Amino acid sequence: MIFEQFFEPDTSTFTYLLACEKSRQAVLIDPVECDVEKYIAALQQRGLTLVYTLETHVHADHVTAADTLRKRLGSKSVVHRDAGALCGDLLVTDGIHLQVGAVDIEVRYTPGHTNGCVSYFTGNRIFTGDALLIDGCGRTDFQQGNAGQLYDSIHHRIFSLPDDTLVYPGHDYNGHTVSTVGQEKRGNKRLGGGKSRAEFIEIMANLKLAYPKHIDVALPANQACGNLAVKQSA
Amino acid sequence: MIFEQFFEPDTSTFTYLLACEKSRQAVLIDPVECDVEKYIAALQQRGLTLVYTLETHVHADHVTAADTLRKRLGSKSVVHRDAGALCGDLLVTDGIHLQVGAVDIEVRYTPGHTNGCVSYFTGNRIFTGDALLIDGCGRTDFQQGNAGQLYDSIHHRIFSLPDDTLVYPGHDYNGHTVSTVGQEKRGNKRLGGGKSRAEFIEIMANLKLAYPKHIDVALPANQACGNLAVKQSA
Repeated sequence: MIFEQFFEPDTSTFTYLLACEKSRQAVLIDPVECDVEKYIAALQQRGLTLVYTLETHVHADHVTAADTLRKRLGSKSVVHRDAGALCGDLLVTDGIHLQVGAVDIEVRYTPGHTNGCVSYFTGNRIFTGDALLIDGCGRTDFQQGNAGQLYDSIHHRIFSLPDDTLVYPGHDYNGHTVSTVGQEKRGNKRLGGGKSRAEFIEIMANLKLAYPKHIDVALPANQACGNLAVKQSA
Repeated sequence: MIFEQFFEPDTSTFTYLLACEKSRQAVLIDPVECDVEKYIAALQQRGLTLVYTLETHVHADHVTAADTLRKRLGSKSVVHRDAGALCGDLLVTDGIHLQVGAVDIEVRYTPGHTNGCVSYFTGNRIFTGDALLIDGCGRTDFQQGNAGQLYDSIHHRIFSLPDDTLVYPGHDYNGHTVSTVGQEKRGNKRLGGGKSRAEFIEIMANLKLAYPKHIDVALPANQACGNLAVKQSA
């Protein structure tokens, strides 16, 4: 499988390119609107056709490139059925498998940061969006966030994977790029070392986070798959 | 590809089994609740795993087996995003390809009988649901039906296929089992011989059809993927 990690520094967002070496079909996980040219160049350079953009959730901190990429390259936008983005071309739920040439991608429903969050699992890699971050996790104080639900999602759908499974998050603010299930189970400051559900809920309730600076623009735009007209009128 | 056609005589409904010979993965197109045991026996006999039930639309004349099959066999329910059946596990739109082992199934959006109708195209076969029937077509007087839209769907997404493409409809009331695109383009009494859009709309406006006898039970049940609790309370 072809694999590349992109980083957008303004919002500290990771985007991932996965592709089948044989069929040359590709997907982008969580592409960011401002980096469209970078993705298109990477696809062209490798001789790949973009078939899907996969959203881990409806983001509050950046605008997705899904709509721009579907207009320019004909890719289809994939998002969870309950994420509130009926603009998606393919709405998925837990346990759906997406086949991209020889690459099989399993959808794992991991709500809690938002009620429409999924992780994408393929081979020995899981792309966790804002559910599980490296030594952290997504906040749970907006978009139907729920700390107890996030704890259950991470435990049942991510920590249940083998310890050596690679964890690729949606963001990192501290220079990390990858972790493993084992490392997060042991050391994650909010979840690691067997912290209980009650302890986690208590931690999440006391984060005292600022109002997200991009949410009022990003949310309506992303509910329209990143449609720029919606973004501009927001 | 493994292929079998089932017929449910009470509502004259066709159900189709398609499966990959190698992976032994199967789909059922438009399975009917009352024939669940028949499908399960056929799957077992052939050693197949049911991965998807594919709805061509939300039916008004029979209850889908989608929910029963997903509970009993773990299959996923597939339906068009705009069909009003958010119970579906995978909501699709025009141009999406479903991969079932080596079998590729293309979703073709063919609204007009209802606003959520699709046809499924694989190899040289198209499964047209109630959009195009043999020597007929679906009615357009309920569920956001629209004769002009149905004419466009059939012309752009079905009649645009090669003439020898096999047409497998959702129903037949006259003993037919299969047709071809060429046969329907030439001879279909409502559409054939190059009938204009205006002629077709005129024909559809004057059918004087009775109120569908099962619609008040079938519609709410099918909007819940055939969930029996919903059916019983309807």
